[in-house]
Amino acid sequence: MKALIYITPKDDILDPQGQTVGTALRNMGISHIDEVRIGKFVEMTLPKLNLKQAEKATTEACERLLVNPNIETYRFEIDEEA
Amino acid sequence: MKALIYITPKDDILDPQGQTVGTALRNMGISHIDEVRIGKFVEMTLPKLNLKQAEKATTEACERLLVNPNIETYRFEIDEEA
Repeated sequence: MKALIYITPKDDILDPQGQTVGTALRNMGISHIDEVRIGKFVEMTLPKLNLKQAEKATTEACERLLVNPNIETYRFEIDEEA
Repeated sequence: MKALIYITPKDDILDPQGQTVGTALRNMGISHIDEVRIGKFVEMTLPKLNLKQAEKATTEACERLLVNPNIETYRFEIDEEA
């Protein structure tokens, strides 16, 4: 079982890294790119847990360590096949 | 239209940041977490493009700027509703 966690800067938080990448892409001629926002993608392998336990462990990992709730939001999926 | 890009360290590449987070989670008592791997999650807003153009622009952005093919792999989805 695998947890796939997507952490992004909140909409009203400035993302200078994303802005820099957006500018770079436009300067490279890849046009029609508007806003770029850069976050984190975390994969956690959770053997020996059932779906409910995996969801609980993932929520706890996000809220106690991975995510800064002041400036970030998160969502996750549990892949039971992985 | 939005591109959602997931960039992860290749399987055979050491991910010290992921290892550190895994150790921290286990030390915090969130057990049954095995491997943790940390990558990047990039959201690009692509107005005015159709699906095919959006796929082309996203592939180009990944291959020419966002992804280091020596140590990273990527996949992306185009969300036509966003």
